[in-house]
Amino acid sequence: MSERFTPTPEDKFSFGLWTVGWQGRDPFGDATRPALHPVESVQHLAGLGAYGVTFHDDDLIPFGATDAERESHVKRFRQALDATGLVVPMATTNLFSHPVFKDGAFTANDRDVRRYALRKTIRNIDLAAELGAQTYVAWGGREGSESGAAKDVRVALDRMKEAFDLLGEYVTEQGYDLRFAIEPKPNEPRGDILLPTVGHALAFIERLERPELYGVNPEVGHEQMAGLNFTHSIAQALWAGKLFHIDLNGQSGIKYDQDLRFGAGDLRTAFWLVDLLETGGYEGPRHFDFKPPRTENFEGVWASAAGCMRNYLILRERAAAFRADPRVREALKASRLDELMLPTAADGVAGLLADRGAFEEFDVEAAGERGMGFEYLDQLAMDHLLGVR
Amino acid sequence: MSERFTPTPEDKFSFGLWTVGWQGRDPFGDATRPALHPVESVQHLAGLGAYGVTFHDDDLIPFGATDAERESHVKRFRQALDATGLVVPMATTNLFSHPVFKDGAFTANDRDVRRYALRKTIRNIDLAAELGAQTYVAWGGREGSESGAAKDVRVALDRMKEAFDLLGEYVTEQGYDLRFAIEPKPNEPRGDILLPTVGHALAFIERLERPELYGVNPEVGHEQMAGLNFTHSIAQALWAGKLFHIDLNGQSGIKYDQDLRFGAGDLRTAFWLVDLLETGGYEGPRHFDFKPPRTENFEGVWASAAGCMRNYLILRERAAAFRADPRVREALKASRLDELMLPTAADGVAGLLADRGAFEEFDVEAAGERGMGFEYLDQLAMDHLLGVR
Amino acid sequence: MSERFTPTPEDKFSFGLWTVGWQGRDPFGDATRPALHPVESVQHLAGLGAYGVTFHDDDLIPFGATDAERESHVKRFRQALDATGLVVPMATTNLFSHPVFKDGAFTANDRDVRRYALRKTIRNIDLAAELGAQTYVAWGGREGSESGAAKDVRVALDRMKEAFDLLGEYVTEQGYDLRFAIEPKPNEPRGDILLPTVGHALAFIERLERPELYGVNPEVGHEQMAGLNFTHSIAQALWAGKLFHIDLNGQSGIKYDQDLRFGAGDLRTAFWLVDLLETGGYEGPRHFDFKPPRTENFEGVWASAAGCMRNYLILRERAAAFRADPRVREALKASRLDELMLPTAADGVAGLLADRGAFEEFDVEAAGERGMGFEYLDQLAMDHLLGVR
Amino acid sequence: MSERFTPTPEDKFSFGLWTVGWQGRDPFGDATRPALHPVESVQHLAGLGAYGVTFHDDDLIPFGATDAERESHVKRFRQALDATGLVVPMATTNLFSHPVFKDGAFTANDRDVRRYALRKTIRNIDLAAELGAQTYVAWGGREGSESGAAKDVRVALDRMKEAFDLLGEYVTEQGYDLRFAIEPKPNEPRGDILLPTVGHALAFIERLERPELYGVNPEVGHEQMAGLNFTHSIAQALWAGKLFHIDLNGQSGIKYDQDLRFGAGDLRTAFWLVDLLETGGYEGPRHFDFKPPRTENFEGVWASAAGCMRNYLILRERAAAFRADPRVREALKASRLDELMLPTAADGVAGLLADRGAFEEFDVEAAGERGMGFEYLDQLAMDHLLGVR
Repeated sequence: MSERFTPTPEDKFSFGLWTVGWQGRDPFGDATRPALHPVESVQHLAGLGAYGVTFHDDDLIPFGATDAERESHVKRFRQALDATGLVVPMATTNLFSHPVFKDGAFTANDRDVRRYALRKTIRNIDLAAELGAQTYVAWGGREGSESGAAKDVRVALDRMKEAFDLLGEYVTEQGYDLRFAIEPKPNEPRGDILLPTVGHALAFIERLERPELYGVNPEVGHEQMAGLNFTHSIAQALWAGKLFHIDLNGQSGIKYDQDLRFGAGDLRTAFWLVDLLETGGYEGPRHFDFKPPRTENFEGVWASAAGCMRNYLILRERAAAFRADPRVREALKASRLDELMLPTAADGVAGLLADRGAFEEFDVEAAGERGMGFEYLDQLAMDHLLGVR
Repeated sequence: MSERFTPTPEDKFSFGLWTVGWQGRDPFGDATRPALHPVESVQHLAGLGAYGVTFHDDDLIPFGATDAERESHVKRFRQALDATGLVVPMATTNLFSHPVFKDGAFTANDRDVRRYALRKTIRNIDLAAELGAQTYVAWGGREGSESGAAKDVRVALDRMKEAFDLLGEYVTEQGYDLRFAIEPKPNEPRGDILLPTVGHALAFIERLERPELYGVNPEVGHEQMAGLNFTHSIAQALWAGKLFHIDLNGQSGIKYDQDLRFGAGDLRTAFWLVDLLETGGYEGPRHFDFKPPRTENFEGVWASAAGCMRNYLILRERAAAFRADPRVREALKASRLDELMLPTAADGVAGLLADRGAFEEFDVEAAGERGMGFEYLDQLAMDHLLGVR
Repeated sequence: MSERFTPTPEDKFSFGLWTVGWQGRDPFGDATRPALHPVESVQHLAGLGAYGVTFHDDDLIPFGATDAERESHVKRFRQALDATGLVVPMATTNLFSHPVFKDGAFTANDRDVRRYALRKTIRNIDLAAELGAQTYVAWGGREGSESGAAKDVRVALDRMKEAFDLLGEYVTEQGYDLRFAIEPKPNEPRGDILLPTVGHALAFIERLERPELYGVNPEVGHEQMAGLNFTHSIAQALWAGKLFHIDLNGQSGIKYDQDLRFGAGDLRTAFWLVDLLETGGYEGPRHFDFKPPRTENFEGVWASAAGCMRNYLILRERAAAFRADPRVREALKASRLDELMLPTAADGVAGLLADRGAFEEFDVEAAGERGMGFEYLDQLAMDHLLGVR
Repeated sequence: MSERFTPTPEDKFSFGLWTVGWQGRDPFGDATRPALHPVESVQHLAGLGAYGVTFHDDDLIPFGATDAERESHVKRFRQALDATGLVVPMATTNLFSHPVFKDGAFTANDRDVRRYALRKTIRNIDLAAELGAQTYVAWGGREGSESGAAKDVRVALDRMKEAFDLLGEYVTEQGYDLRFAIEPKPNEPRGDILLPTVGHALAFIERLERPELYGVNPEVGHEQMAGLNFTHSIAQALWAGKLFHIDLNGQSGIKYDQDLRFGAGDLRTAFWLVDLLETGGYEGPRHFDFKPPRTENFEGVWASAAGCMRNYLILRERAAAFRADPRVREALKASRLDELMLPTAADGVAGLLADRGAFEEFDVEAAGERGMGFEYLDQLAMDHLLGVR
């Protein structure tokens, strides 16, 4: 493979331990791969050119471990990080695997489950801070319901707010340099999950006590499970100053959560996404949250992980070439993208109302006949994506 | 038909002129019904028991009408309102039918189109206020794109914000008692529409200069076109204090925008929706935004309109019976819905951390074995919906 | 609960052992319920009024059991059947849980896996025949792929045909009174599954050597995962003489496979489905293939199973009342359903061409103005479904 | 642009008159482009390198034209064909635009509408034969319903069969060298359309009197509106010997029918589709059935049409390179695609049962551990698609 698509730590690629470590258990089948030790994952990922590794508490320290076991797990993990230079930019809590969370965690109907979930989270926040993470992701995968009376959503949102406010208070008190990134998902494993899209999560954040501490961690496939344009949601998150982290993977349309490697699934959206991430001011890690298909052995796992990074780098090169092409710049102008940047009414209400050219004398028929030039522009993008120019 | 499902103005049912007046033009076929005069619509709707009627500017006054024609249209409409007692609780702007809006209105790449759109809107806001409307709906049906470079979404959101801020300034200056309700939709007629879900719209509102002036106008079918639980989105809108208006109709899953009569499509969601609207503090009109299928003549149109109201009333009765049933109350308790109402950590961070019962001594296995009782509860709801108890 | 919705064996309700026995393991969580012994399931289901029970080989006899263990499992199962009077109308093979099937069974790329799958199937066919089953279901859940080159679909269909032809030869040779029912599904657990819809399966069958031996086993949720009208697919299967078996459950639109209890999800489609099953000549079992949600303990499991049957019985009563209502008969006539039953051109090509009234003198505009009366008719159906008449 | 992606008639690209001629009328907006004369379309398409042009009767001859007008339209069209060398490989009937078809054509409840539809079709079949078309497409866009009682689907299938049998009889009697290609679509403009997928259409054909006369005309976007893998459906159609024609375009997932230019939408599926069409024995036209977005003027229309062909040619080159790459051949072998070609049980039932290695002595655990190598293979495909090797 060509040098130019070989990742280095400068590319800021990170992977969850649970991604390469996924054993292939799915709703209809047993594990097809043995467990992968976190240390082994760290070593392999470093070897492939990754920059960081992320984890759920239970990925690193098996659920129910004693304190001594816990310490030993963390120690070996740290050693692996030190040896490889990998960093831990993000951590998160597993609030979904154990039966106790079957009705949710922060919004479980059972108060003791909610309290337990908060304690489990706080415990791992301490570890995250200790390991230098700056982002703490919260995916409320079980916060939801399958039937209408099972959850009073307004009350559940009160509980959700209470949980996040308390966690915000905790990290503030502790002086941790840690911000929260809420990860939306529309459904699966619950019939409907609360905060189902990037929009719902962004809106929720505005009702928290310390909104500045909270942003979003959108995942490609999650937004696409609702048929939404992922790049548009990322753009709105950036516009709101709230893109704190991102989960890159692939999804083939509205169906179960596929977690394909990045680039697989909707390739054209992946192109526009990379274009936006590289030019839109996002400086966080490019984090892959994928699942190497169950058909693969470990060789396939590492091929899949390498493919995530390779595809990002290819798309990055192609998007840059697209933006640099003088024909593209002309085409963008022909499509009046420059005009979109002009304020609509810098003259204010009064100026607008006084401007007869804006309404009374506006030739609406002539304006309706203008072509927008989008098909030509989009074909230029296709050509750059495919590398034919 | 039984008396008890016969609507009266107290039920606050309203209809858009464009609903019963839809002529049946669709992407593959011509109109199947002649135009319906607004006055006739008002009379018929009043006869059926409706309370209000709503309109796009162009529904009432044909696009391009002279001032004299305009005045005459408004006058006749007013007379019909006076004669029937129908009110106009809401109005909106048609920013999508004319070719000039093919690339959007407030976010069209062309600045003059954006200015024209604002002027067209302001003009109808004046009429809306004059007719006593308290809500002004904004559906940005053409704000979007089919291809990635055609719209810089962050810039477009700047323009969207600029437009809404200007309109907010205008109604404030004029002293109108009018609030805006933004109507989200994921796609159609554009490949992807900006502010695609209730969540995205709620989040957007928080970045406006006068957020208190803006809420949402969710439409059943629009949220369901993204596969989302409509009732959940309504709950979040209520939670945020932002349910300013609502569009009731029916949709059979993720496909083109069907605008079926209310009740058709996803009936169980309709039940939970009515349950929430009737108990959640929403006091606005129950507004139907549906399209009587193209197969119908006017007799069918009125049957369809009557069906919307009838179904609402049936569901209202059934939802009330569900909530009043002592077995339901017991079942809700057995499912610990009462516990969801208790604060999770009224004892604060310190209290929570000090509580060994919350974590160290919490019997997580025992807690995981508890049944939630949701299936029994949901079957009670089914029985009430079907009226078998 | 009222007597009239209490099931009896005459209602022919059957359940898979894997339904009530599902332990709640999902892609993001561990089992929430202990294993349920087949004998216990048989007893409980009989107590609830079921008529039959069905199984995958591995549901009854744990994978890898010795011959002696196998015999003992079968013996205890038989005794439970004898004691309760439950029958086994159908059986099927688990060709998806074990890692060996990760790339499929009859169409696995590995020939030895394909041979193993056939042997595993034949072994269970023998048991099915012994237990009196008349239908053998084949769900090819792993026959598919996640990426384009991984499966040559035409070649895979050759292998699929080879497998079914061989199985057909086997049951013919053995003289078993057993027919095959192929169960389609669009995706999950594979990215795309072969024979994704009822239509694809029906078409495939026509290319087999003994097409008369094969029909379909459509599942509500599977067809709805493709957004298709399940009742329409059932109607086409009946029309083709191929509805050999059916899997009843619930699904809330296009998303992961939910396996809700029958009636939950799309209730209106459930109504039309029952209407069709009861009047369309289907005489097989009403088989429930659902998963009691992971939130439930065993009490909830049985409530969920009971709900499946109860909902079927309620809908059966409502559909019968709809068909018996004189107003409905009139409305059907007004919508010209009777005319649909008349041959279009009993006069043949020549007659049709000679009939000037059919074209040259046909008043196409007048015909286009006729209303179809569907909204009135559908509201009658809604009223009957809701029991308000 | 490079020469190698410039189409020539040898590439067999054809376009419907209704594609470039689409005026941009959609459910929410008026036409944005004037009508395009068929002759002009022919000239432009020829200039772009197309090979053929196709039409609905009403595209060529306005609905309701007199015989003299009809003759004149046909004459001018023929002259344009002669002048440009374009051929007419396919024609079809518009059985959806006029209100008379609002409840369908071949399955309309009204018998006179059904007879009229047949006569309209026969009339255009005569013209199609006269113009040398070899394929007659039948898209039953209005054959369906929005509500459950409005159509008895089994009876409707009887009427559908009757119509196709009659048309088959007609072309046989006339000695036309014309075969029918049925075009499936799941929904839009009807809530549910009969024969919703390629599978349903293939199955239906098998019940016709002269099945050999009928095949399918699958459209990319239609199958993708049901979330199905289009390439898989094409493979099954080829496998059944039934791919008589194809409609190429683009679609971005499950939503309204987008009719994007070929390549836009799901690019990876487009790659696999071209790969299959070029190697799978399909020799018919590569027919584009797309709609240049409503935002475009005629310049954009032609850019869009050119883009369809260009993308096909790029993908054709890339797919060929993929198949020719020795690393790919090795990878296919490593994924055992060669083994899929071997019969599973050439030794028959007896041989299979006698082979202890197939079951009793098969090491199922070891077999389960094999990796399939699909991720590496798929990344090779991605590299070829993107042209990075």
